[in-house]
Amino acid sequence: MATMVVLGSGIMATALSFPVTENGHEVRLVGTHLDREIIDSIQKTGVHPNLGLKVNENIKAYQLEDVAEAFEGADVVMCGVNSFGIEWIAEQFKTLLKPGQKLLCVTKGMRADEDGTLHLLPTIIQNALPKELVDQVSWNAIVGPSIAGEVAVHHDTCVVFCGHDQDDLDYLADMFRTDYYHVWTSLDFVGHETGAATKNIYAFAAGFAKGMLEAAGKENDKYVMYNYSSAVFAQGAKELIHFIKLMGGDPNTGIGLGGVGDMFVTSMGGRNVKAGTFVGQGVPFSEVRSVHMKGVTLEGVAAISVVGKALRALTKRGVIKEEDFPLCRFLYSVVEEDHPLEMPWDKFFANLK
Amino acid sequence: MATMVVLGSGIMATALSFPVTENGHEVRLVGTHLDREIIDSIQKTGVHPNLGLKVNENIKAYQLEDVAEAFEGADVVMCGVNSFGIEWIAEQFKTLLKPGQKLLCVTKGMRADEDGTLHLLPTIIQNALPKELVDQVSWNAIVGPSIAGEVAVHHDTCVVFCGHDQDDLDYLADMFRTDYYHVWTSLDFVGHETGAATKNIYAFAAGFAKGMLEAAGKENDKYVMYNYSSAVFAQGAKELIHFIKLMGGDPNTGIGLGGVGDMFVTSMGGRNVKAGTFVGQGVPFSEVRSVHMKGVTLEGVAAISVVGKALRALTKRGVIKEEDFPLCRFLYSVVEEDHPLEMPWDKFFANLK
Repeated sequence: MATMVVLGSGIMATALSFPVTENGHEVRLVGTHLDREIIDSIQKTGVHPNLGLKVNENIKAYQLEDVAEAFEGADVVMCGVNSFGIEWIAEQFKTLLKPGQKLLCVTKGMRADEDGTLHLLPTIIQNALPKELVDQVSWNAIVGPSIAGEVAVHHDTCVVFCGHDQDDLDYLADMFRTDYYHVWTSLDFVGHETGAATKNIYAFAAGFAKGMLEAAGKENDKYVMYNYSSAVFAQGAKELIHFIKLMGGDPNTGIGLGGVGDMFVTSMGGRNVKAGTFVGQGVPFSEVRSVHMKGVTLEGVAAISVVGKALRALTKRGVIKEEDFPLCRFLYSVVEEDHPLEMPWDKFFANLK
Repeated sequence: MATMVVLGSGIMATALSFPVTENGHEVRLVGTHLDREIIDSIQKTGVHPNLGLKVNENIKAYQLEDVAEAFEGADVVMCGVNSFGIEWIAEQFKTLLKPGQKLLCVTKGMRADEDGTLHLLPTIIQNALPKELVDQVSWNAIVGPSIAGEVAVHHDTCVVFCGHDQDDLDYLADMFRTDYYHVWTSLDFVGHETGAATKNIYAFAAGFAKGMLEAAGKENDKYVMYNYSSAVFAQGAKELIHFIKLMGGDPNTGIGLGGVGDMFVTSMGGRNVKAGTFVGQGVPFSEVRSVHMKGVTLEGVAAISVVGKALRALTKRGVIKEEDFPLCRFLYSVVEEDHPLEMPWDKFFANLK
């Protein structure tokens, strides 16, 4: 039996502890400084307050001050913070990560240099660590359509564990596989991580139609706006696959769990979709951010800000063309420049054969 | 101004008459023998009863006995029946279609020979006509995520007009384009028609999760089954693109309006999804067909029957492999052999890199 330590006790990291513990492994769940109440609750009642569920008995919860103890002898380390915490966790890993450990990243997002060069989040962690340590740790990630709570209540979920070493992937997949948690493995780490990071961009746009209908008083009409959302989904799928190519991944990865599958689940709801709904209602995004969803973590919007800005720099450098990624560019103008919701349909679906 | 005659007055064909007439063109809507009441209603009140809307004033409705008059001098002929009517309409076209007319097909589906060779529906029409006439008619089709009623009430809709001649496509696109009906054109006729035909197969599976939740009394739980439906969607996307390749189309067509976009809208609801919901509840499909949805047109289920059977013949001939199209094969066993809903997850997502 193996031991997994999880740093970050949000709903996704916690939910993923269910299949692992059900397979008889030990999970040590460590809260960040922001997770104090979550860990308190689990320690006292066993209940994760945001997930709304009691965790399994062999999940042991630790406050951050006990993190060193929790990492002691762990075989697997899960990076379980959200994308805003990636620089913080990289700092922690400097002293916590040990040679031979297998890292499993569930955090999704991107960072960009001033010249537009995009980086996946595991790269951000690696860049903060001594090169020797980086080479002695196994780097892996979980990708695919997973609403955390659905995993926790044992609903069928299909995911891809991606990494660089097939043996490590098999080891990790074995730890997690149950009759409801179905795991595939892939060596296309870059393609899968890129799909996972960019799908969040398009989830924001999945909320527009609902908001537009609400603003027009038509949300209960016989005919809603699935045509609109489907067209946005289709353009999103094209751009997601273009991002995979741009980052050097396998475009086929976009057609599957790590691309359109993940984008589908993300479009079904959540905070980014809700933020998009406000924009659909006609609220300028600056007001959504400062009033209606003040303080709410919006990873999709953050991805739009990072990637959208990078696209402008990449265009200037001639790495991509002006007409590439029209939907992502438009979403950037919505979230950063309060652009109204006039979808630039005529820029979509270029290069149809 | 051009004249379009539409044979078949179902909701899709009728809805598509809206943008055309709003552009000042004349539309002659001819009912089949099954559409008598629809045409009666439009002639008397202007209302299409199934669409639940009043049609535009320059849509003129004809009963089938006046079809020859309606075809007189028409520039464009729309094939507006559903897939069950394709052999019937081919018979009609023998005497009605005239050289120089542009055909625009909205009917989606497939037929198969005993040896598994698959045919798109326009091919079925062509095979029934004299070769000389086939060569003198322009063959085109409309593909993309379109719920009929949403077009009729002017919600943004993005579609692809596909065919073999760019000038004809431009002519047709010009007839239809409005500020809410956005038209692209493509010469990948086979790819687009294949995507449109096969997406219906997977819509049936989009209903399973809801039915399973209902059977378990969990449909109002905090956590539903989007992970399940997203995995099915992802495998469906892979198979849809595989079908496009098998038929000789451009696989890129699957990533866009004519593939995942169309599959997305079809998964949002409709009769095939409803039929799948019954199966999710545990009802054998033979009972769904004979009791719960008796007499209801199920084009997706029909596509599963035709294509699923063909896959077995194609496998025997070595055209495809045993492990190809596992979801479509499973759906075939559900609708033709009352197979229970045990999703063969382990057969999905093969060849991940």
